[in-house]
Amino acid sequence: MAFQQVPVRNVDITSTFWSQMQRCSKEKTIPAIIKAQKSLQHWYCLTWKEGHEIQPHPFWDSDIYKIVEAACYFLMKSKDEELMATVEEAVDMIRAAQHPDGYINSYYTVLGVDKRWTNLRDMHELYCLGHLAEACVAYETLTNSGRLLEPVLRALHHVDSVFGCEPGKKRGYPGHQEIEIGLLRLYELCGEPLLLKLAKYFISERGRRDAKGETYFDHEAKARGGDPYEHFGSEMKAWFQYPRDYSYNQADQPLLETTEVKGHAVRAMYYYIAATDLARLTGDNDIKRVLDHMWADMTETKLYITGSIGAMRQWEGFGARYVLGDTEESGTCYAETCACFALILWCQRMLQLDLNVKYADVMEIGLYNGFLGAVGLDGGSFYYQNPLRTYTGHPKERSAWFEVACCPPNVAKLLASMGSLIYSFKENLVAVHLYIESEFRVPGTDVVVSQKTNMPWSGDVDITVKGATQLALRIPTWADGYKSSVEGDVRDGYLYIAQSQDLDIKLSFKLKARRVYPNPATGKDQICIMRGPLVYCIEDVDNDVDIDHVGVIDDDVSDGEPINIAAVSGVIPVKAMGRELVQGQSSLYAPRLWKYGDKKSLLYVPYFLRANRSGKGGMTVWARRLESL
Amino acid sequence: MAFQQVPVRNVDITSTFWSQMQRCSKEKTIPAIIKAQKSLQHWYCLTWKEGHEIQPHPFWDSDIYKIVEAACYFLMKSKDEELMATVEEAVDMIRAAQHPDGYINSYYTVLGVDKRWTNLRDMHELYCLGHLAEACVAYETLTNSGRLLEPVLRALHHVDSVFGCEPGKKRGYPGHQEIEIGLLRLYELCGEPLLLKLAKYFISERGRRDAKGETYFDHEAKARGGDPYEHFGSEMKAWFQYPRDYSYNQADQPLLETTEVKGHAVRAMYYYIAATDLARLTGDNDIKRVLDHMWADMTETKLYITGSIGAMRQWEGFGARYVLGDTEESGTCYAETCACFALILWCQRMLQLDLNVKYADVMEIGLYNGFLGAVGLDGGSFYYQNPLRTYTGHPKERSAWFEVACCPPNVAKLLASMGSLIYSFKENLVAVHLYIESEFRVPGTDVVVSQKTNMPWSGDVDITVKGATQLALRIPTWADGYKSSVEGDVRDGYLYIAQSQDLDIKLSFKLKARRVYPNPATGKDQICIMRGPLVYCIEDVDNDVDIDHVGVIDDDVSDGEPINIAAVSGVIPVKAMGRELVQGQSSLYAPRLWKYGDKKSLLYVPYFLRANRSGKGGMTVWARRLESL
Repeated sequence: MAFQQVPVRNVDITSTFWSQMQRCSKEKTIPAIIKAQKSLQHWYCLTWKEGHEIQPHPFWDSDIYKIVEAACYFLMKSKDEELMATVEEAVDMIRAAQHPDGYINSYYTVLGVDKRWTNLRDMHELYCLGHLAEACVAYETLTNSGRLLEPVLRALHHVDSVFGCEPGKKRGYPGHQEIEIGLLRLYELCGEPLLLKLAKYFISERGRRDAKGETYFDHEAKARGGDPYEHFGSEMKAWFQYPRDYSYNQADQPLLETTEVKGHAVRAMYYYIAATDLARLTGDNDIKRVLDHMWADMTETKLYITGSIGAMRQWEGFGARYVLGDTEESGTCYAETCACFALILWCQRMLQLDLNVKYADVMEIGLYNGFLGAVGLDGGSFYYQNPLRTYTGHPKERSAWFEVACCPPNVAKLLASMGSLIYSFKENLVAVHLYIESEFRVPGTDVVVSQKTNMPWSGDVDITVKGATQLALRIPTWADGYKSSVEGDVRDGYLYIAQSQDLDIKLSFKLKARRVYPNPATGKDQICIMRGPLVYCIEDVDNDVDIDHVGVIDDDVSDGEPINIAAVSGVIPVKAMGRELVQGQSSLYAPRLWKYGDKKSLLYVPYFLRANRSGKGGMTVWARRLESL
Repeated sequence: MAFQQVPVRNVDITSTFWSQMQRCSKEKTIPAIIKAQKSLQHWYCLTWKEGHEIQPHPFWDSDIYKIVEAACYFLMKSKDEELMATVEEAVDMIRAAQHPDGYINSYYTVLGVDKRWTNLRDMHELYCLGHLAEACVAYETLTNSGRLLEPVLRALHHVDSVFGCEPGKKRGYPGHQEIEIGLLRLYELCGEPLLLKLAKYFISERGRRDAKGETYFDHEAKARGGDPYEHFGSEMKAWFQYPRDYSYNQADQPLLETTEVKGHAVRAMYYYIAATDLARLTGDNDIKRVLDHMWADMTETKLYITGSIGAMRQWEGFGARYVLGDTEESGTCYAETCACFALILWCQRMLQLDLNVKYADVMEIGLYNGFLGAVGLDGGSFYYQNPLRTYTGHPKERSAWFEVACCPPNVAKLLASMGSLIYSFKENLVAVHLYIESEFRVPGTDVVVSQKTNMPWSGDVDITVKGATQLALRIPTWADGYKSSVEGDVRDGYLYIAQSQDLDIKLSFKLKARRVYPNPATGKDQICIMRGPLVYCIEDVDNDVDIDHVGVIDDDVSDGEPINIAAVSGVIPVKAMGRELVQGQSSLYAPRLWKYGDKKSLLYVPYFLRANRSGKGGMTVWARRLESL
């Protein structure tokens, strides 16, 4: 039996570190996003009629849905009349925006609804409805009013009347996956069989080719006149590498024939999240086997050490195996925030299907590094891209808003629903994936599992169980050994503790700084420093060395004295030794090895805290490995 | 006083190595290209009238002009009635294709000539005329008939009537530079002042912005209705990184304000070739200063060790500083053949302006590696891209033809006119840039300079001078010392030998294999092996090791016994020691350094000879540096 997802309501996060991040998100991020949407008029796009003077962006609708979803999660934890009123305002707009046949989409409403469903590849009608379905799950969980469930079910029945294998229906699927997630989440909420059927259809239809090798995207392009990928003489190029390369959309082949992660990273992750949920709900082992291949391909060849994914800027997605450039300038470190967000959710889903520490390891790495570093400590600024290196003179500032505003609401969604990452459960078993101070009230029981810990700075965790349950406690792969006051068996990286009543467990992980080396296939001979799940970096504000030209000596590293970085206190830095490249060696190639100078001490700080202080912009995660001789 | 370019007619190449390449080019490449053009109908595009059923590609014209140019160079050296007849057939077609006002372009003739000159950014009308002017120089040098000069001058007068600073003219310039080169070459041939004026105009007008910051490309886009870079909702992207980033065309700023090489590599090189010629013809020191900056930027941060340029596939051009990926799969090793071809010509032009070994070094590296390796030893197959690494199971075959067929004719042009790379001259001084067995009859004198050498395999060169002249003999930077039987002064890497009559000089360079290390800013800690100007690589056909996972030990390397590779005999391989990565280390990151196995010997062969034998595709120029301990 698979694990169930934990309701947001049932977890209270008491960690100083994380509750500060959550408070900041609720009090600063969400109001900032709503304010930006309103002042830019995006917020009102659902009220516009055909021919409105502003043509909405194809996915402005989804920004509204995502912020509604995030707001509902926060509202489950604490009341806020103003925020609730904003949510209800959005629900009113959504209800009023629905066409008589159930269709909801501001872009085609303004452009002319007769043009709808003609370009699934590029437009985002199904994508937006997927986010609406997710918002509906959050809203109905909060209110149970049916005010969103009713129009959303009508919208999805309309989708079913248009798409499917039945005669007379279009055999389309979305250019950007997301509706599959929404359908399955809503199915789990309300049990309507049509939702499961439709999700199955979209997932299994995707990438099917006809006898001529053409996909639905070819068919619909011809139906609207000509192949839009032909850009003869216009010097334009598709996002992907060549015309009709639908691997950008993971639509070049069916899911069950796929063996590697490719194309647009967010689309890929949304696809696999839904496929994982489908495998869990239907017990489909073929899908699970494919997902295992994808997982291996991604984690062994295409994953940044920060948990970011998607090296290639051109298609915002996965590059070739081992192509993991560090700098944004190079065009090979896209590392989009939304992609890391989505990867974390994929890990969450894989953990429900298959309790194995490898998923929790990546989830934790992504959470503390690629994801968390995307948010400024002010809670109101964000990175869209998350390079592992920036150069002196070219600092990278976080932005308050983006033209394509997908990332900020996703950050708010994840922080608001973090409780569901920490734990999962099934009958008489609670799994603890992340050590974050919190309390989990197991649904349908009187069991309460709580943790006290100062992670990620200390490796000690006190776990208390009230009531009776079995436990599966993660032993992180980064931990250099563990101790537990209660014995148990370790399977797939989880310590299983037999049923026990009102138990106290003292867990302890050795948490010390370590050097990490990249596979030579990456072309790198460099060192990164980690401590527990945290990736560290060197910034020029802490170091009197030329960050752009420093190497690190391949020798022991050690914890420094705790420091404060902006609002985060008790940060443990790491000390290492390095050498600067001797100046004046400007040639690109030389017949002798480059010379490095005298030893200098280096102070490393967690990567997620980068660029929150002053400095000239010099920052790097990886540094050249220098022999310790 | 600047150096003059050597007429093709005045140099006989007697080197076995190079005359074989030239013969192959004349006997195989040129007939193959003409045959392909004819069978694909491209050859006849200039005869087509408005509304013809085939719409020519915007630059099919240029393929005809380039092959005419190459053919004329070969015809200067030896008669060939069939080839001459083909050239005259092309000249007839060109003459007949001219519109009454002088305009020549098959694309707009078929599309409707009223649409001409509306999209200089993307279309190639001026580019094609530039190649026509170059063909004209070659044809008139060969025939002196005026049959091409007359229509070409009329075409260029037409261009002058449309473009320029004068009131009523369009202030345009080409999206793809080339006409500037043709104008200046034709000016040097016939002395028509209008040609110099027009070239100056195109070069100085390029990148100018109006008070609103808009360029001509913006103006013409608006004039034809809307900004074509706006692709709202269509998921399309420009070749360059963001809309209106005219650095793709080097048109984002004027030449004199530019400090770095950027954008499409071939366009950049054609631009700098013309600018160098303009600086030489006008003595403009400001241009020279800018070119020096470009040179430094390119050679210190953006040049492959093979002399290839243009790492980025997306815009077929220069990436960020030090971003020089080795594999095509990664999207960061485009390294187009035409770009290397053009770089060689830029070096040739810089040498005329400023006799400095640094230009000859790069010219020679490009010639023997990035350029020469693009041609198969069959003379009829070519690489468009020239990666420095290919993986086992993914061999890279040379192709007989390309849809965009720019590279093969450029290969033929360069091989046909190679004599003009070896020498240059001015009054009473002959400069020798390349040591290639040949004879140079100095124009307007009875001086003959000839070389006997087995370069690139041996470092010994016998130079004989008949008649009286001073000499400047290049001392290659790769040479680990030199000996000369005649004394002289070395300035900027050239050995100047005073005026002498009927002289024999024995020159000798130490030619031994050496290790080369890349600047740490590239992120690499790897070794490449070179011998003289030749870059070496390891291929699986010679080595019983896993080429994809081998490191090279940082220790002395040595020459192997001469071998034959296909038709090339006397090839000197290089022996080194390496170690294979121990198998089973599949993780992407690890807390310990990767393990390498026992020592194994490695056999290196010249990179230009790669992929001419069997093998599974494993090939690399760079290999991980392993300590020699």
